[in-house]
This record gives sequence, structure tokens and C-alpha cells, in this order.
Amino acid sequence: MTEMAKGKVYLVGAGPGDPELLTVKAQRLIARAAVILHDDLVPPAILALAAPQAEVASVGKRYGAKGASQPEINARMIESARRGLEVVRLKGGDPGIFGRLAEEIDALETAGVPFEVVPGITAGIAAAASLGVSLTDRRKAARVVVVTNHQAPSEQGSQSTDWHGLIRDDSTLVIYMPGHDFANLRDELLAAGCAPDMPAAIVSRASAPDQRYCFTIVGELAKLPRMDSPAVLLIGRSLDRAHRRSSAEAALALDEADLILSSP
Amino acid sequence: MTEMAKGKVYLVGAGPGDPELLTVKAQRLIARAAVILHDDLVPPAILALAAPQAEVASVGKRYGAKGASQPEINARMIESARRGLEVVRLKGGDPGIFGRLAEEIDALETAGVPFEVVPGITAGIAAAASLGVSLTDRRKAARVVVVTNHQAPSEQGSQSTDWHGLIRDDSTLVIYMPGHDFANLRDELLAAGCAPDMPAAIVSRASAPDQRYCFTIVGELAKLPRMDSPAVLLIGRSLDRAHRRSSAEAALALDEADLILSSP
Repeated sequence: MTEMAKGKVYLVGAGPGDPELLTVKAQRLIARAAVILHDDLVPPAILALAAPQAEVASVGKRYGAKGASQPEINARMIESARRGLEVVRLKGGDPGIFGRLAEEIDALETAGVPFEVVPGITAGIAAAASLGVSLTDRRKAARVVVVTNHQAPSEQGSQSTDWHGLIRDDSTLVIYMPGHDFANLRDELLAAGCAPDMPAAIVSRASAPDQRYCFTIVGELAKLPRMDSPAVLLIGRSLDRAHRRSSAEAALALDEADLILSSP
Repeated sequence: MTEMAKGKVYLVGAGPGDPELLTVKAQRLIARAAVILHDDLVPPAILALAAPQAEVASVGKRYGAKGASQPEINARMIESARRGLEVVRLKGGDPGIFGRLAEEIDALETAGVPFEVVPGITAGIAAAASLGVSLTDRRKAARVVVVTNHQAPSEQGSQSTDWHGLIRDDSTLVIYMPGHDFANLRDELLAAGCAPDMPAAIVSRASAPDQRYCFTIVGELAKLPRMDSPAVLLIGRSLDRAHRRSSAEAALALDEADLILSSP
């Protein structure tokens, strides 16, 4: 570590989107950082908390759009910290859940740059909260499995997730980046032993003003509407009550529509 | 729902302990609530955010100490909301991760009391962040399994967790309430196929001023020191780098101790 290395990099979770779901610590660090390097998922309302003189730059890659490469992001963090600056590397959700945090820690540590990880509310937890769902339930959900639908590209290319061993009646599955091919996912889950009547819910843009959700069951996953990214798919008996509640509300809405239609 | 039911219950995650790891929303709701019913794990510094006139009551059960029963907690939330009050039911970590949230939602919904769940930073995510560990890693940790060491008491009594299917080289295990019988846990994990050299870390009181942690490997779990609750045990290849860092620091500390001892 050189004498110049007086800066520090904070790898900060921005939470799922709602600025009120930032932690107090994240809010404080964003407000005082000299440099903010953020993913595309971080909304303008959160970036607006930065100091007026701060250097705020998007380094996100979004759906094929050209963004900074991982080595470029690493170099920029390291260079700013070596200039003695406080850097906030701001990531959607929690940095340690599908946030490529490990690669950035490796780079910072190799470069001898001090860093600190500040946790955030991850999308799956925010999605469950927004539906009034407890991911664990002493009576029916003893564990939570957090996974992506397709595994990250490796030397062998992108692979289907191996659901073997993950599918149990007393597990809640939280599937990040579920994609849109729900017919294929349904087939994979059923083949791995998932009950067709297992409740499921997709939540798009959890906690944001344009959040949407839809309940279904695993056997009917293919009927889910296409929703905006980022989305999270929740699957498990822990959704039983919220699923019934949603069905009851839908029925009520239909009844009310009937009343309106049938009124003179 | 009666006409009197104008109150509302917020089921709020207080985070792992550090008041700065509260969400902005939790902080706001705590400051304005008329009634706060909190678990024992919520520290005084967070309760100090309540309004001076608020009714603040502990309803926690801690290690056999007599606390309010679940029906008593439910009754108190419902009664306060029916008096038209805003109630914050404050739980350590995230309410939906081993927080008995499901039972409380059931009671509120059955009573027709409006409620909202506000997510929090759960202990496992805070523990990983404090160690500089990413729970997922594109190169070696494709999923996170959140589980307790022993399952909640059911009609059959408390049961050992069935690790079958959960142990994979590319999973990170986050074990809440790991207990102290690490020799037994080691045996169970090894029997389920876990590699003896798999890195592990226990984090006690994550994010609190008296946080402690210790790294080891699964084969040597039994050597872990006894630590204060609440504690979280992290296991997986995702801990590789932090484990090496910790070993290097320990070696450095030994070297420095040598220097001091050997100086004239």
C-alpha cells in the first residue's frame, strides 16, 4: 500500500429502488462522497442525495447497452481512492447478492485500497415485504434459497440452473433474473419435483412507484404476463396466504365491476 | 372491519443492531409511532428514536425468560390499531427471515387490521458485509441457502436440519441460530457431503459495537470459540478470500507479537 492510499471505497447497497429503503448509513455516505460510481438500477431520486460537487458517474451495463467493463470500473475506483478521495460504489439491492461484489473486492484488495461493504435491502426481501409475505414460516418454510434462473456465464457458457435438491415443500425459492421463459422454468421445476399447485408470485421493480406483481401457481407459470426488469420470482408454501388474499381481492374487484356494469 | 379500525400496524425490520443500518423508512416510522412493540434484540439506541410520548414495550422472549406469548403480542397489536393508533412492531433484522412474521400477519389479517411490512437488513447479509464477503460469486457461489441449524419445534419436537441437497460446492450457507454444538454440526455437514476444507465463519452480534467473528473450515468447526447470541454461521467457497485475509492478518499479528517479545 503506498503513502498516497488515503482514500477509501465504500461498496454500498442502494436497496431495491425506494429511496426510503436506503439505510441511514448509505444515505450519509452518498451525501458526503467525492465520487459516486453507480449501477443503472440506482434511481435518480437516490443519486440526487449526492453532494453538488460530487463526481457522479454511471458504470452500469444494461441489457446489452455499452457500459464500463469490470476492469474499467475497478481501475476507476482504485484511481479515485489513490487520489485520496472517498468513493461510493453504489449497487442496486445488496452488493453481496448477485452484485458482482466479489470481483470488485478482489481488485481493491489486490491494489491495497481500503474498502468497506455497506449492506442494502436486496430485491427478494423487498419483494416479499411488499406482498405481505414472510419468506420463512415456522409452520411451512424452514429455509430460503436465493438463486438465479440461469447461472452466470462460465467457460461452458450460460447454464440452466440445477434445481435438484433445491425443490422441497418446506423451502421458499427466491429467483433473481427469472427471465421471461416461464414455460421452460415450469418444466424444470416440475421435473425437479415441485408440486404444480405450489404458489408463486412475480414482483417487478419491487418498492418502486411502478412496482407490479402477479400471483400464480407453478403449474401455470407460463401464463404470467411479461413484466419489466428487474423482477424477482418467489415460489413456496410461504406464499399461501398472500396468494389467497390476492385471489379474494381479484374476485372482489370482479364483483364490483359486475355491480357497476349492472347498475342502471 | 369495523369503523373504528383506522389504525395500522407496521411490521418493521430494525436491522442487525447498528442504528445506521436502519432504513430511512424504519427510522421515520419509529419516530412517529404511537405504540412500539419490540423484540429484545432491538438495541436501546434504536428505541431512543421513538417519540417521547410513545408507548414503548418489549414483547420479546429471550432464552427462556418470560416474555409475551404470541397470542398476547397479536392481541396487543390488534387492540392498539383498533384504538386508531399507528403501531410499529419492531423486529431484529428483517421481519420475514426467521422473525415469526407469518403468524402476526395471519392474526392481523384475520382481525381485519391494516398492516404493512417494512423490510430490514437481515443478520446474515450484515455479517457477510462486515467480513467483506460477497454471498454470491459468479466464479464460485451460484446460490445462497438461508437456514437455521435446528428447525423450529413442530408436533414432533425440535428436529435436526436435513442438509441433504443443501450442501453443494457452489452454494453459500447462511445458518441462523447455529447454537453451540459445532461438533455435531460438523458431523452432519460432512455426512451430507460438505468438503472438510470448506471455509466457514461465525459472526456474533453483526454490526453491533461488540461484534466478534472467527474464521475456520468445516472440518474444524468444533474448535470455534463460544460466542454471544445472536450469531450467524457462514459456510462456502465465497469466503475463500476473506478466510485467507483473516489468516494473513493473524499471522501478521503473531509476527508483530514476536517482534515485541524479542525486542530488547
